[in-house]
Amino acid sequence: MRSLRIVRTSTAILLLTARPGLAQTSSPAAAGASVEAMYRDIADSLIRAATGDSAAYARLGNLVDGFGHRLSGSASLEAAIDWVLAQMKSDGLENVQGERVMVPHWVRGEESVELVKPRRARLHMLGLGGSIATPRRGITAPVLVVTSFDDLHERAAEARGKIVLFDVPFTTYRETVKYRVEGAAAAARAGAVASLIRSVAAYSIRSPHTGVMHYDSTVTPIPAAALSVEDAMMLRRFQDRGQPVVVTLRMAARTLPDAPSRNVVAEVVGRERPDEVVVLGGHIDSWDVGQGAMDDGGGAVAAWEAVRLMKQLGLRPRRTVRVVLWTNEENGGKGSLAYRDAHADQLTKHVLAIESDNGVFAPKGFRFSGLDAAFAKAQEIAELLKPIGADKVSREKDSPEADIAPLVERGVPGMGLDVEGSRYFWFHHSEGDMLDKLDPAEVGRCVAALAVMAYVAADAPDGLAHAAAR
Amino acid sequence: MRSLRIVRTSTAILLLTARPGLAQTSSPAAAGASVEAMYRDIADSLIRAATGDSAAYARLGNLVDGFGHRLSGSASLEAAIDWVLAQMKSDGLENVQGERVMVPHWVRGEESVELVKPRRARLHMLGLGGSIATPRRGITAPVLVVTSFDDLHERAAEARGKIVLFDVPFTTYRETVKYRVEGAAAAARAGAVASLIRSVAAYSIRSPHTGVMHYDSTVTPIPAAALSVEDAMMLRRFQDRGQPVVVTLRMAARTLPDAPSRNVVAEVVGRERPDEVVVLGGHIDSWDVGQGAMDDGGGAVAAWEAVRLMKQLGLRPRRTVRVVLWTNEENGGKGSLAYRDAHADQLTKHVLAIESDNGVFAPKGFRFSGLDAAFAKAQEIAELLKPIGADKVSREKDSPEADIAPLVERGVPGMGLDVEGSRYFWFHHSEGDMLDKLDPAEVGRCVAALAVMAYVAADAPDGLAHAAAR
Repeated sequence: MRSLRIVRTSTAILLLTARPGLAQTSSPAAAGASVEAMYRDIADSLIRAATGDSAAYARLGNLVDGFGHRLSGSASLEAAIDWVLAQMKSDGLENVQGERVMVPHWVRGEESVELVKPRRARLHMLGLGGSIATPRRGITAPVLVVTSFDDLHERAAEARGKIVLFDVPFTTYRETVKYRVEGAAAAARAGAVASLIRSVAAYSIRSPHTGVMHYDSTVTPIPAAALSVEDAMMLRRFQDRGQPVVVTLRMAARTLPDAPSRNVVAEVVGRERPDEVVVLGGHIDSWDVGQGAMDDGGGAVAAWEAVRLMKQLGLRPRRTVRVVLWTNEENGGKGSLAYRDAHADQLTKHVLAIESDNGVFAPKGFRFSGLDAAFAKAQEIAELLKPIGADKVSREKDSPEADIAPLVERGVPGMGLDVEGSRYFWFHHSEGDMLDKLDPAEVGRCVAALAVMAYVAADAPDGLAHAAAR
Repeated sequence: MRSLRIVRTSTAILLLTARPGLAQTSSPAAAGASVEAMYRDIADSLIRAATGDSAAYARLGNLVDGFGHRLSGSASLEAAIDWVLAQMKSDGLENVQGERVMVPHWVRGEESVELVKPRRARLHMLGLGGSIATPRRGITAPVLVVTSFDDLHERAAEARGKIVLFDVPFTTYRETVKYRVEGAAAAARAGAVASLIRSVAAYSIRSPHTGVMHYDSTVTPIPAAALSVEDAMMLRRFQDRGQPVVVTLRMAARTLPDAPSRNVVAEVVGRERPDEVVVLGGHIDSWDVGQGAMDDGGGAVAAWEAVRLMKQLGLRPRRTVRVVLWTNEENGGKGSLAYRDAHADQLTKHVLAIESDNGVFAPKGFRFSGLDAAFAKAQEIAELLKPIGADKVSREKDSPEADIAPLVERGVPGMGLDVEGSRYFWFHHSEGDMLDKLDPAEVGRCVAALAVMAYVAADAPDGLAHAAAR
């Protein structure tokens, strides 16, 4: 997903400075040849290899069926990372490493919301990541349903001692997720004893969605959870009819000391300029529900497979291609920061960073963050993806993908794989994020798109500078 | 839903005998006037009243939010029936009664399926209605995944001592539901210790679906449950990879002695031929998940509202219109049998029976079971529903709706409200069957369709005989 951290400090990404990485790689000898002429055959061979079988989907199945969900701090995440590292070595990838990262360690524990009035019923819920627990007996209180922060503001006098429910229908993720992230702080400020949200979900079959929330240092933390869309709507209907609503929220969530995790890194080392790097990846961690197949097992495996195919086809580009499976994207972003810091002295030679974290659905192309010249070159490379319909490169209108955002802030051109994501928020952070939500052929096309973009950006004699020189 | 009982003895409905009811109501005086000429104004006034506000949706909300799900034998079902009876009286409906019916009383209890091998995980499941319990410690056994009864047959030697999982993708309800109904008996016959199915669901967000199952008197009963589609697919993938699968099934389900329930009956008594009756209704019971809003709170309320609107508009048809909210459609059909038996001596004067039990989505028309002449007349009446797009009457290709099936077997013409039901099996018998799955405007159009069809069939001087005489 696009970076929440960046959502909160979004001016930062407007301050991208011109940076030398790509512009200095120009190679006059081949500057005249078109990308199409130079790379059509190689691109087609990568596309054929990626779409000719279901290897990526099978590998993703082994990952997510074999280890399940992979929340930061969990044994399943670290076991999955061990397995990936071993598999990458047996793939013949180079410099395979787990780079240590300390990550938050939040544990859900038993949890429930019970409707007490106007009748008894068990509601469908998921605690939000980072929430504190309730007392063991739970918190039983009247519910005040509000429809926005403004609505809460207007009804602040009614909120004291109540459980506030933000019943906000999904519009865009950016517009709706702020209630998940900041709702508890806003409710606490109004004197509420707990905070609930309508799940941030574009569709629901009584399927609640979790995700990260943040407290505010100026107010006392209160427990925070998401109800299913259906349950939130029901509580709102009770209130609209004038029926007092009382619920009991119970959460045994705990935040343990930070735990060690790892960013997975592996390479195909460049044949001419090994110190210049194209990074591509996804995040290996997930929420503690479903299998994290869509978010983001699929993105992680697709990037990995893209690099494996280069190796398999004997393609060693001029520059190094490095696959990075970031840890802790979901509740901390510590993996992305650790990568940035561990490789701080190499960042000026990072010529491109690509992330896939919108589900490996049918790929449409990429969203680009960076300078105009590099954007133009990326568009030129993407033309090679016309056979699989993934040739559209647009300017990133939102924040860059979360794990590459710290690199983009340092001036590295960034790209996010753009996909047909109309059902992404049906499954995102829910128990429904299971392997079957992805399609083997679509996953294969995502692998192809990542492989072609990464390989050509890494190999092009003049990097993305050719376009910059126009 | 269409009758499962009839599914099992489907030849019965082919034996419909010619019956006198409608044919004997001919009234030569008005035989020449067209339905269109006689009833256009009344039909339009019913359509306007039904679609002019959200009264039906609001009433449905009061029912399903107020009482929740309503399984036979539950306190919530009987409380809902009490409320409906009181409301019907205050609506001014006539002869409002709860007609006693003894119904099965199955109680779910605590239940779970835990994956033990190849890794530990809690699977999403619902026990099937009518299942026996497991021992308290559960049943832990290897899983054999089969894809059909034939597949089980071929692998019968492997099934002994195992938990059989029927992983059958949804095609049609009729094709798929047989694994829910008969799977446990087939698995037991092969020596299995428990039976699981992939939920009978056209779409899933890890949302299991319950429903009735039947044992077979020739084999020992074994516990039976449904996994979510996602979980069933995962177990199959494990098996396909050669990974042994072991699960622990725990179910505390109990079948208690039959309990008293009631069919709700209310009328607008006919002004000329009060002993001739048009029945319309839905079923008031539901499964013990979700709210039973779609299945079939909506159908029950739509039929009730159709009759209330006649009363409100001062429309008293020639014959009696009787709304019936059947009990125990879901796991026994005792309400439909009790209605048939309690009114056995009136059935030859039942001129039409209509049920709405496919969700009150956008109405398209009706499916008809009965004689050609009556079918033609029903088509003529349905022309009045062109303004709301509900004018198509087709021959019932399946069984009649479950609650009117016993009447159709006795020769009563039957009609099922036909709707745009593409998402019906997304929610059916699942926690997702909540009010928000229905749309107020569509519910209103269903009310209109039921009201116009019932009123005109009850009022037409020659009943459906006009067509029969052609």
